[in-house]
Amino acid sequence: MNTKEKLEKKIGELSKIGADPSGGVTRLLYSKEWIMAQNHLKGWMEDIGMVTSFDGAGNLFGTMKGSDKNPKIILTGSHIDTVTNGGNLDGQLGIIVSYLAIKELIEEYGQPKKTLELVSFAEEEGSRFPEAFWGSKNVVGIADKQKVTQTTDIDGVIFEDAMLASGFSFDSLTVKKKENVEAFIEMHIEQGSILEQEKKQLGIVQAIVGQKRFDVKIDGQANHAGTTPMSYRKDAAYAYAKIVSQAIDLAYKEGDPLVLTFGQVTLTPNTVNVVPGCAEFTMDVRHTNQEALNKFCCKLEQLIQAITKELEMHAEIELWMDEPPVQMAPKLVQTLDKLFEEKKFNYKLMHSGAGHDSQIMAQHYPTVMFFVPSIDGISHNPKEATKIEDIVVGVEAMKAILYKLAY
Amino acid sequence: MNTKEKLEKKIGELSKIGADPSGGVTRLLYSKEWIMAQNHLKGWMEDIGMVTSFDGAGNLFGTMKGSDKNPKIILTGSHIDTVTNGGNLDGQLGIIVSYLAIKELIEEYGQPKKTLELVSFAEEEGSRFPEAFWGSKNVVGIADKQKVTQTTDIDGVIFEDAMLASGFSFDSLTVKKKENVEAFIEMHIEQGSILEQEKKQLGIVQAIVGQKRFDVKIDGQANHAGTTPMSYRKDAAYAYAKIVSQAIDLAYKEGDPLVLTFGQVTLTPNTVNVVPGCAEFTMDVRHTNQEALNKFCCKLEQLIQAITKELEMHAEIELWMDEPPVQMAPKLVQTLDKLFEEKKFNYKLMHSGAGHDSQIMAQHYPTVMFFVPSIDGISHNPKEATKIEDIVVGVEAMKAILYKLAY
Repeated sequence: MNTKEKLEKKIGELSKIGADPSGGVTRLLYSKEWIMAQNHLKGWMEDIGMVTSFDGAGNLFGTMKGSDKNPKIILTGSHIDTVTNGGNLDGQLGIIVSYLAIKELIEEYGQPKKTLELVSFAEEEGSRFPEAFWGSKNVVGIADKQKVTQTTDIDGVIFEDAMLASGFSFDSLTVKKKENVEAFIEMHIEQGSILEQEKKQLGIVQAIVGQKRFDVKIDGQANHAGTTPMSYRKDAAYAYAKIVSQAIDLAYKEGDPLVLTFGQVTLTPNTVNVVPGCAEFTMDVRHTNQEALNKFCCKLEQLIQAITKELEMHAEIELWMDEPPVQMAPKLVQTLDKLFEEKKFNYKLMHSGAGHDSQIMAQHYPTVMFFVPSIDGISHNPKEATKIEDIVVGVEAMKAILYKLAY
Repeated sequence: MNTKEKLEKKIGELSKIGADPSGGVTRLLYSKEWIMAQNHLKGWMEDIGMVTSFDGAGNLFGTMKGSDKNPKIILTGSHIDTVTNGGNLDGQLGIIVSYLAIKELIEEYGQPKKTLELVSFAEEEGSRFPEAFWGSKNVVGIADKQKVTQTTDIDGVIFEDAMLASGFSFDSLTVKKKENVEAFIEMHIEQGSILEQEKKQLGIVQAIVGQKRFDVKIDGQANHAGTTPMSYRKDAAYAYAKIVSQAIDLAYKEGDPLVLTFGQVTLTPNTVNVVPGCAEFTMDVRHTNQEALNKFCCKLEQLIQAITKELEMHAEIELWMDEPPVQMAPKLVQTLDKLFEEKKFNYKLMHSGAGHDSQIMAQHYPTVMFFVPSIDGISHNPKEATKIEDIVVGVEAMKAILYKLAY
């Protein structure tokens, strides 16, 4: 079997676990499908001679010990959980690609000098409980047991009960940083269309964006659409429209890598013949540079206040998410850049606009990630797809990196 | 009892019929409360010597025959139905004011020369069935029996079954224009705040606005809020915001009496971290002049097409309501203007931005209407209110008009 055939087989096998009847995959943290998938991966790891273990949170590790005395660990992998009715590449493709790379390396070169370790992170998406990165946060020792204790899923199931149902518990969970990790490397699908549009097969991630999310509420005055002359109005939809159009104009002016999204809006009363009295909307701002992100958000707040003041309305702005940008290890980025050039891969240096386990790992270990393209940029959707030839290149790239770092 | 006391008594009495426990009044066409209110009014009319009759649709008439040979009819009144949980002035106040004016005229001056007729229109609001002006349309002979036959209310009750339940039926309904009407005069609350802001007690309506209502759909492309650079986006919320802000700027420039309202919007998927792929919104445009209304709507359509084209998106625009402006009879407007000046009323000439029975009547009989102020412009709401002193002036004004026209 060549790499392409092996990939197709492995993706097919793993995608069956949690497959939705209508297409797509649902594999939420601590669900029946989730533990089945982890155990299935455990079998794969053991097939190639890896020693396997779960930590207290349910992260699965497969270890191929290095020949060095007290060998450092070269860690690779991604997350096994999915969003509800997600695709079959987000997360699990990173695990499969690292697995096949390790398998081929062992077959071709035998035992590595450094320890090669494959991780299948328990959770990244925050889809079942309102806590993302539960897997990697446990690996780096910053998971907050206290915080998740009180959380419940959509059916009212308490976090620890869900844990117990799949064989884990808070009792056996010691949140402690994994030692001896020299590097973490993650492969993931891009979930965007930059690589596809620029006809690249690989993207080396230099940074993961920081994100700020805001709720904004504009209070105007609801009025009869017929009997209220324009000059008497405090039309919240007008204020909202001025804010969105001018803010997005500012974002275009600012340019990449800044992105600004007004994804959600609710007008009140939202009736054809009433001037809207209230507009509530969200604002999602991302940038790879903390200072640039802060500065742009300041500008946005000033714009909102200036427009509402001019229209004699009132704005409330609430920041409810504030994740800092995370840089990948420059030395590892350089290593990949050099390696990919030598191998004549068709790649580019870029940033990630979405969050990944690597942003947690990078704050504790030298970390780097790289992307393979997503067809039409579609993700979190059963239509999520990547050309198989591009995934084959992903395996070749991962193999080259792990060889370079561990052999 | 002075006029103020009589008004308070009558308003109190009629407002009990259909009173909502939480405040406000609900009196939908052909409901139990509706027929109770019509019968109650019938009693009042008979108390002052009027001959009463219902037409086949349920419009109630009280007639005080004139002494002239073959006397023409001076008709006055308004509608008895309300919106769901509406106020206690919209509609019924016009009936009460006309009733008290006629009562006092008869008491002071006896039989009029022309016939004085009070109408309590069966329906104006379109609140139970999707057909407004059912009352006045039957009076002028343009009601469409065929059209309403198939309609049902929110509980699935068929129009004719509702009719039957309150003692009316299609069998006994002959749609025929009422003959011999020389003038129709309606008093109504303003449902806006122009009179209040300009400190006027009365407003003579010269015209009722025409209205066009549109549904607009902008198709862009839904995308990940993090992984899609600004230059890759087709953000439907951005197109919507540009349209709304620029269109409202145009409306301010156009000036009174044009009004433009974007009352309703739905973004899809309407999620904080997804660039909106679709924006669907309504557009309500009103003007007293048909040509100006048409011209402005053309400008709006051009603006929408230009903005969406520039942003490489697609717009669909659907006109689903197109009511022409209606002018009140100039001679009657002049009569009221002269009379109100003589009486030293504190009044202004204005237009109506809301629809009224008078817009149906005016197309068939010489018609005029006048307003009393609404506190804070509130209407279609239990908080709907007018100062009692202003209503007293309303009765005086109605009395003066009816005396002028019928004695």
